[in-house]
Order: sequence, then C-alpha cells, then structure tokens
Amino acid sequence: MKLSTVSIAGRITWGIVESDRFFDVGATLTDRYADLKSAIAAGLEGVADAGKQAAAIPVSEVKWLPVIPNPDKILCIGLNYEMHRQETGRSVVDHPTVFARFANSQTGHLAPIIRPRVSTELDYEGELAVVIGKAGRYIKREDALSHVAGYAIYNDGSIRDYQRHTHQFTPGKNFPNTGAFGPWMMTPGELGDLSPLRIQTRLNGVVVQEATFSQMIFDVARQIEYCSQFTRLEPGDVIVTGTPGGVGAKRTPPLWMAPGDVVEVEIDRLGVLRNPIEAE
Amino acid sequence: MKLSTVSIAGRITWGIVESDRFFDVGATLTDRYADLKSAIAAGLEGVADAGKQAAAIPVSEVKWLPVIPNPDKILCIGLNYEMHRQETGRSVVDHPTVFARFANSQTGHLAPIIRPRVSTELDYEGELAVVIGKAGRYIKREDALSHVAGYAIYNDGSIRDYQRHTHQFTPGKNFPNTGAFGPWMMTPGELGDLSPLRIQTRLNGVVVQEATFSQMIFDVARQIEYCSQFTRLEPGDVIVTGTPGGVGAKRTPPLWMAPGDVVEVEIDRLGVLRNPIEAE
Repeated sequence: MKLSTVSIAGRITWGIVESDRFFDVGATLTDRYADLKSAIAAGLEGVADAGKQAAAIPVSEVKWLPVIPNPDKILCIGLNYEMHRQETGRSVVDHPTVFARFANSQTGHLAPIIRPRVSTELDYEGELAVVIGKAGRYIKREDALSHVAGYAIYNDGSIRDYQRHTHQFTPGKNFPNTGAFGPWMMTPGELGDLSPLRIQTRLNGVVVQEATFSQMIFDVARQIEYCSQFTRLEPGDVIVTGTPGGVGAKRTPPLWMAPGDVVEVEIDRLGVLRNPIEAE
Repeated sequence: MKLSTVSIAGRITWGIVESDRFFDVGATLTDRYADLKSAIAAGLEGVADAGKQAAAIPVSEVKWLPVIPNPDKILCIGLNYEMHRQETGRSVVDHPTVFARFANSQTGHLAPIIRPRVSTELDYEGELAVVIGKAGRYIKREDALSHVAGYAIYNDGSIRDYQRHTHQFTPGKNFPNTGAFGPWMMTPGELGDLSPLRIQTRLNGVVVQEATFSQMIFDVARQIEYCSQFTRLEPGDVIVTGTPGGVGAKRTPPLWMAPGDVVEVEIDRLGVLRNPIEAE
C-alpha cells in the first residue's frame, strides 16, 4: 500500500495511491483520523477497506505534500555510507551520527526546493526515509523493523555554508522547503527486503549519487535501536537514513543546485521523488 | 507578568503567577486559546484582564509543567560563554552554534530530571530561555527583541557520553525529562535589561556555574537574527541561549548529577528552577 498526504483544490487530505489514481481515504475516515499520522498511530486500521469506498482522483489533480507534514521528530542520520564518510574526511565512529530537522523545513514531491537568498550552496542528499508506526523506547535491534509503518524517499537538501558555520549541522539542514519527502510511503510488506534496493540521485538527468542499502554503515534496525535509546519514538516520526557518496559539496569544483535545475531521487520499487529548484 | 503552564488535579491549564498564587487564565479563556502558546501567538491579548477574574489557586497545589510544553522548535545555542568555550576546547566561530532539542525531552519545575539507565554522565547546564512571541524570518538584529514574548530559566540537562558519541550533539541533548523549563516565563518589560542579570547554577547548594548575561558571546538579539535566517520562528518557539563555564564534564574528576541530588538554576529577578535527580 502506498500512502500520501496531498492537497486537492486547497483541501488537505491523505489516502492511498494506486497507479495514476489517488483514493481520498482522509475524506472517508474524517471522524476517525485527523491525518495520516493519526491513522499510522492506529496501525492503519480500516484504511485499506476505506480505500475501496473512497473517491478516486487522478494523481494529476493532487498537489503532493510531505508524506508526514507534521512529524513530532525528524531524526537525520549523517555519514552512513562509507564513500560519503570518506569524502567528508570524518572519522569512523561506533554510533550513528544524528541531527534534527524541523517539520517546517519540508516540501512535497514536484514542489520546489527553495534556494534561500542568503546562500548559493544548495546541495542534494538522496536518502531512504523510515516512518515509525509503533511507539517505543529502548527498542531492540531484532524488534526494530516491527516498529516501521513504511518507507519513503527523502531529499535531505542542505545549505552547506550554514552547515559548516560551526560543528553542528542544524542551521544548514533546516532552511524552509529544503527537505523533500514523497511522493508516498510504502508499507514494508509491499517494499520487501531493503538490502538489494538501489538509491540513485540525478541532477538534470545526470546520475550524481548511487548505492544500495546493503552499503549502509548502520542499517535501519540499528538506527531505530540507537535513536530509541535517547528519545521515545512516536508514530509518524521520521528517520532519514543517510546519503551515499557523491554530494555536490565534495566535487571539484563543487556542484550546487541552481534555479531551473531538476533533482530526482529514485529508489527501486518505491518510485521517484522529483523537485525543481527555485530561487527564494 | 509571569506566565506558567501547570497541571491541577490532572487538568492541564495555564495562567498568571503572582507571589504564591496561580490565576487559572486557561480555564477562563478556554474558548479563545487552546494553550499558552496560542495566547502568545495572539500577543497575550486579554490575558491580564482575564487574570483578574480567574480562580486563584495556591501555587503549592499546582504541578509545574514546562512553560511551553509543545513548542514547534527548541533551538539550543552551544558554547556561548567564553569560559565554557575554553573549557570544551572548541574554536572561536563567527556564528552561534545551534542544535535542537525535541519537546518530549522537557520537564517542569520541581519535577525530576531523570538519569537514564544507559548512562551515569548526567550534567547540568543552567541557561536563559527566550520564548518567541511574534513569528518572523530574516529578523534584523535591531528588531529582534520585539519578537520576544518572555524569558524563562532552562536547565539544558545533557548526557555527555551520548553527546560525544559523534560530533553531533543531538543524542546527548534529547533524553526524556532532561530539559527543565520553568517555573514561568516573565514578560520582557517586567524583567528589564538582560545584561546585568546574573545566572547561577547550584548542585546540592554548591555554586557550580555563574555568569552575567553581558558575558554572552552572541547576545539574544544576534541569536534571533541568526536562527531566523535558516528557519521561520513561530510563537512559542524557544531559544535556549547557552551555558556558562563550570559544567560537570570538564571538572577533574567529572561531577555528574546522581539520584538524590537537587539542582537549581537561579536568574536575578526571574526566580529559581529547582529539580531533584531521579534514576529511571
């Protein structure tokens, strides 16, 4: 099942995507769930059935919003592929590197990623996003995947000069409309084993990042285990699992995204997240 | 005016504190404001008047909650006093160091700060908290203080081994019940000029940190200016402005907070934030 949050003629709703149709489950279950996050908290109970009765709308008529527009927490994992760790010159560490993104920095599929007027150093980071389904603290690695509601594509767009202002990444990772999240999340059973899946980032059609998830330094289960040690994970929380090598900042000369560009992140079986770049 | 969020016999509300009485404005304006954050977003309109008609409850009967239990964003400033920068061995930088705390890591005045079972390295950080009143992006330094709704006391409790697992502070700064925030926020007019005010942290009555706000490397206006470059500040957002020298981690031997201890942070004119330490 593929689940999205969208806007239809200005009305925000959520539902199921099947090929070129969006089924407006939010309108059907409006008394039961305020949003996709609430439905996830209830284990998506009744959602598939409601989809069968829901109004079908061509996907061409929806405006895609971030899959979860209002997560309590977005935990981003840095330096989680060896090639990227090496290109950044960072040491090997025994624990995932974690920083935070706020919900107001997100944007949806096909919506612009905004280059702010204070910087030209806008970089892409194609990543797999994990949406938490079941709350938990001190989750064991072997139980971790049972806490996942679904997987999605994320472009953890970064403003590199702000990221490097100090040793903390927060400023460079929180500019409005830089975190693209979509078009949908796919339930784990439908996506299947993550390891062989390939992630690829393309800028104006040129491949700039490519890896398979088997190349992650800390896999998804280990990330959930670690994050749940220091915070209670809640339904709808998002873990953004790190980017492969090939970022623009580490090229010679650097490759920055500029207004008029189009960036795509593709994950096997999951789909393609596409965003044009616009100036603020 | 001093404003608090509290729980009274299990009911969460907010209101005005005057000496030993709490005036339950939340109950009076329940149709108008969902919480203190909503009232702040409306410029606290009608709040002082409502306080005159509100039920008065002895403060001994309220349970203090974090002043803003549900901020959109908590932006913490690191290394903002020269003595603390030196004790940590960090370089001089041209911009504030910013990391994030999530709302679920907070606790209130007199409530326990919890030492998690996975660490013994629980450290204090007495700080001034700024509560944003008026939303804004690209706020100019000279306008910044007009965006402040009030000031409060914060203990940015830290789990140092998790903070040092990698170069990103997030894990060490987000354990549940480690960020103490209270007892109230005071409106700027009542608090007056920040510069001469003294902050002092005491562990079991012994002074462990002391400074005046004139010693901040980046003052409050500069912090608001910088944070609003990379994110839109919203009413109820909290900026935690950095801690003076004297943290437990940098003492020889290190001084960790342990169950049974009592930590206090006092700011002139603002009050005292007091928390016992408990084991998870």
